[in-house]
Amino acid sequence: MLAFEAALAESEAAAGVISVEAAAAIVAAIGSFAPDTQALQRATARDGVVVPELVAQLRAVVDKAHRHHLHFGATSQDVIDTAFSLCIAPVLDDFANRLTEIVGRLDTLDKRDGALVVQAHTRMQKAVPVPVSRKIASWRDPLWRSLGRMDEIKNAVVLLHFGGAAGTLDKLGDEGEKVARHMAAALNLPYVPGARHSERDGQILLAGWLSSVSSSLGKMGQDICLMAQNEIGEVILSSGGGSSAMPHKVNPVGAETLVTLARFNATLIAGMHHAGVHENERSGAAWTLEWMLLPQMVMATAAGLRTAASLLDSIRFTATGAAS
Amino acid sequence: MLAFEAALAESEAAAGVISVEAAAAIVAAIGSFAPDTQALQRATARDGVVVPELVAQLRAVVDKAHRHHLHFGATSQDVIDTAFSLCIAPVLDDFANRLTEIVGRLDTLDKRDGALVVQAHTRMQKAVPVPVSRKIASWRDPLWRSLGRMDEIKNAVVLLHFGGAAGTLDKLGDEGEKVARHMAAALNLPYVPGARHSERDGQILLAGWLSSVSSSLGKMGQDICLMAQNEIGEVILSSGGGSSAMPHKVNPVGAETLVTLARFNATLIAGMHHAGVHENERSGAAWTLEWMLLPQMVMATAAGLRTAASLLDSIRFTATGAAS
Amino acid sequence: MLAFEAALAESEAAAGVISVEAAAAIVAAIGSFAPDTQALQRATARDGVVVPELVAQLRAVVDKAHRHHLHFGATSQDVIDTAFSLCIAPVLDDFANRLTEIVGRLDTLDKRDGALVVQAHTRMQKAVPVPVSRKIASWRDPLWRSLGRMDEIKNAVVLLHFGGAAGTLDKLGDEGEKVARHMAAALNLPYVPGARHSERDGQILLAGWLSSVSSSLGKMGQDICLMAQNEIGEVILSSGGGSSAMPHKVNPVGAETLVTLARFNATLIAGMHHAGVHENERSGAAWTLEWMLLPQMVMATAAGLRTAASLLDSIRFTATGAAS
Amino acid sequence: MLAFEAALAESEAAAGVISVEAAAAIVAAIGSFAPDTQALQRATARDGVVVPELVAQLRAVVDKAHRHHLHFGATSQDVIDTAFSLCIAPVLDDFANRLTEIVGRLDTLDKRDGALVVQAHTRMQKAVPVPVSRKIASWRDPLWRSLGRMDEIKNAVVLLHFGGAAGTLDKLGDEGEKVARHMAAALNLPYVPGARHSERDGQILLAGWLSSVSSSLGKMGQDICLMAQNEIGEVILSSGGGSSAMPHKVNPVGAETLVTLARFNATLIAGMHHAGVHENERSGAAWTLEWMLLPQMVMATAAGLRTAASLLDSIRFTATGAAS
Repeated sequence: MLAFEAALAESEAAAGVISVEAAAAIVAAIGSFAPDTQALQRATARDGVVVPELVAQLRAVVDKAHRHHLHFGATSQDVIDTAFSLCIAPVLDDFANRLTEIVGRLDTLDKRDGALVVQAHTRMQKAVPVPVSRKIASWRDPLWRSLGRMDEIKNAVVLLHFGGAAGTLDKLGDEGEKVARHMAAALNLPYVPGARHSERDGQILLAGWLSSVSSSLGKMGQDICLMAQNEIGEVILSSGGGSSAMPHKVNPVGAETLVTLARFNATLIAGMHHAGVHENERSGAAWTLEWMLLPQMVMATAAGLRTAASLLDSIRFTATGAAS
Repeated sequence: MLAFEAALAESEAAAGVISVEAAAAIVAAIGSFAPDTQALQRATARDGVVVPELVAQLRAVVDKAHRHHLHFGATSQDVIDTAFSLCIAPVLDDFANRLTEIVGRLDTLDKRDGALVVQAHTRMQKAVPVPVSRKIASWRDPLWRSLGRMDEIKNAVVLLHFGGAAGTLDKLGDEGEKVARHMAAALNLPYVPGARHSERDGQILLAGWLSSVSSSLGKMGQDICLMAQNEIGEVILSSGGGSSAMPHKVNPVGAETLVTLARFNATLIAGMHHAGVHENERSGAAWTLEWMLLPQMVMATAAGLRTAASLLDSIRFTATGAAS
Repeated sequence: MLAFEAALAESEAAAGVISVEAAAAIVAAIGSFAPDTQALQRATARDGVVVPELVAQLRAVVDKAHRHHLHFGATSQDVIDTAFSLCIAPVLDDFANRLTEIVGRLDTLDKRDGALVVQAHTRMQKAVPVPVSRKIASWRDPLWRSLGRMDEIKNAVVLLHFGGAAGTLDKLGDEGEKVARHMAAALNLPYVPGARHSERDGQILLAGWLSSVSSSLGKMGQDICLMAQNEIGEVILSSGGGSSAMPHKVNPVGAETLVTLARFNATLIAGMHHAGVHENERSGAAWTLEWMLLPQMVMATAAGLRTAASLLDSIRFTATGAAS
Repeated sequence: MLAFEAALAESEAAAGVISVEAAAAIVAAIGSFAPDTQALQRATARDGVVVPELVAQLRAVVDKAHRHHLHFGATSQDVIDTAFSLCIAPVLDDFANRLTEIVGRLDTLDKRDGALVVQAHTRMQKAVPVPVSRKIASWRDPLWRSLGRMDEIKNAVVLLHFGGAAGTLDKLGDEGEKVARHMAAALNLPYVPGARHSERDGQILLAGWLSSVSSSLGKMGQDICLMAQNEIGEVILSSGGGSSAMPHKVNPVGAETLVTLARFNATLIAGMHHAGVHENERSGAAWTLEWMLLPQMVMATAAGLRTAASLLDSIRFTATGAAS
């Protein structure tokens, strides 16, 4: 949010909307700004968004002559949605790396155990023998396809949001696009024409991608739970969870967690689509709903990726197919 | 499903897996096949899928010498999932046409009324005046972006599904890929290596796209409901729904329907993600859940597209912004 | 709906709101009424509700002198919501009977197989041996508790809805309560003061009950799928679904269906809670959403009850616990 | 959890299962126990539940001669589910108080403003004038009915869960019920026969009640947002949220928050019903899903109750109905 306000001031100075001195004063104030976080919390409860109080705190430390230039022409949603873009970009890079690593581990498992023959099961009954490679492919390929959609997801949610009070940059006269293009460059974000304040298809796309990744990992987790049943024993876990009542057990906690996280994101995705019914130029109700869901979905996906990587380190397959 | 079985027989003949005579007998029988639909219904309740009975009925009308070659090497899911591909392809083309038409109507409205000034509302309170163009852009741009994703969606769900009992085409020996490539060409579907029986990311992607379109239309419907309030009157409906108690009313039924359909699909999308936790080589439970959800989502999206086109024909905007 | 209109006319005559002759004419017309269903469908698409056209068709067959007394003081939602009460009441009685029968079958199974010892499994791993009785109790007790809530559910949704245009029976002057009490008696429905047009907690409660029953049956289905795995074999199915690729299989289709229906209702329940945000005196959007969800939930619950009863007829348990 | 372990030891001593000295040593150790919370966190990630490590830490501070008596015959789920009972009981009492207070505030508003006449709106269009009393009744009555269900909800979730490894109290021989009844009395919880480890209808019932309360409050919030629109002005907010771009605005943040919280709980309720498909004697996956959803639903309901109480303090109605 501070990066947004600094880039805004610099860009407005570059476009001649505010003076170079004002921009310099604002940037300097931001550089040494120490927020009163308790006041931010109280104000968020009152205003429904942190920005009015944040701007007020910032203005209080800018020289009086320049302080009304801070946040000039912008609105809370510009700040919040752009801050989300800045935050999610490295997360998506990290997710791409983790997906690549998981795909790699699956390839390694495939090389080691892929030729072993296990039982396929359809409708929860023994079908025909299949090589472990077949199992692994059904876990890896959807992740590989999710990885291939990364650029699309980034294009949808990593961008500058800048529209002012109602999306028309009404206070910037003819300089709106010039300021916006300068800001986009300064923040290393793509410029898109038109604010997307009330258009949430990008967030919905991201949420769908997150839940689809979780769902693919959940399928893998469910399969591992089933293959690791004592009576089946096609997957052996070298480590697992302990039990307070039955110390001998090795519970497939990681695999179960993947199922849980899949169902968690599968539950939350519905709310993101409901939040797409975003009335008028800005809906406090729908926007806040996103805040309660999307960060959790990101965290659940991250937890799934970490859990999957660790789970794949601890399993090995055993052949049962020949005996069938 | 019949097209699948015919293409399978022809392709297996082309690859030398079955005889040319067998294929000809099968194709001829399919050409004049009249199913016993009541028996199909009863069998579906018993078997959980229509294919075993369908195959049995087909075999009964193929010459005895050839009937065991029908459906050879295939499984129920190959038939159902490929039939879905064949059915959804023209639907998606139709949706693309309808989206293009709605975007066109929005452009026409924009040309006619776009310069009128109305009130922007943020958090359900008057914000600043905006041109109607701004409203229209927030309805059109997400639809435009959805249209731009059409190829991706098609690539994800319009394809040949062919894997046999457990996805390995185990009965076709070395001829599996050859048969599959021939079938894909015969059915005018892309060939992809590896059956995706238990990989449902394609269906999830389609469902997300459908619900995202509905959600964008729902936002437009919600806006029109709000603008058409008597006290606001920024949108005038030339036609609407009647009331049994208050004959003078013109209810914004089409606009409300768009909100309903958006929330309907937003509800169902969750189940599609749950169905992604598709255990083993084929999950009866998860697969059947898709059948109960995805066709409804397609229908709801279709209803939304039709309703939106008709709604846009019946609205005009009036300027209120100058008075603010 | 016709019963509502007839009871309304009779009750208004009894209260002196309309003449006895008018009521007699209305009741007679309703008695021989043959609706134009195609016109009803078209009008529903236009008006968002069937009642205005239904009333128009009815009025057309009532003597001119009396026709304006038909539907007098009522609104569409009175008709629809009361018709729902009348329709759901016998369904709930049927569900109570089916639940009682399923509980009885579980008791019978318990008597026959309850002492057999099988493996308990916690977190998908062998725990300790338990008698089959323990399994059966975990399936039966939640159903028993659901049965115990039947009166509460009926009280919440089986009642007269009668409020007129905006819930105040504005056209009936001081006679509103008198008419309402007479109607309630005539329709054999409880009278409650105050229309509940925009209060949907009753429908939400019903939907939650339906989904809770489905969920309990889904747990039973999931357990049976797991116990019927070939490698475990604690449940033997005397009949099941056939496979097109593997004729030897006996698929636990009924048990899988219970899981599907549970997840279907678990998905739809969310939309019913969203529909509780029912704005103003009547929300076309929220009300229509109920229509798209609640009947499906009733049907899915019915399907689950029928499937469960039949499934319990076809299973037997085998002891494995001693061998552990 | 510590209360559970202490009550267990005392009750087992009372039943002669363990010695009085062992119980005294265990109770004393619990009284002065200081957990290593970081170790608890690490172990929870590994074991999927905190109890094994908690028991290990407790045993380490009990005299060697007695430590194996701690947690004797119990399982993790006994501890967690009972701890939930103990935690939720006072929360439900608090919710009852808050609901009573909100109902009281609505009654007070009704006395003050109830006779004012405003416009009813159906399908987002002006219907007929109604007194404010009618509006208030539609907000209050569902809350009143929710309050009337409090005992049912408590009976469903406030109880002793005690079943041992697989619900049969297998280690306690004939003393199981005696120990359980003693524990229930010691913890001031109802005793119920049979552990409900895999029966989640109680949790589902609670979740439905929470979401139904939120939904009723969301309807009130939505109505207030609509009535507080500048163009309608039937509700005046004496305080509201500020805007960073438009300092003159008074945003109905509290009312919007009620809508958000309603849709949040309406989203999460689906996952609770999915978690009802709880396989075998204990499902790690389904149980963990509850942990990710139910506490959030409790918190969201609490936030809604607090927000509603404060919102009702800040609104007044103005008459508009006469002008219609």
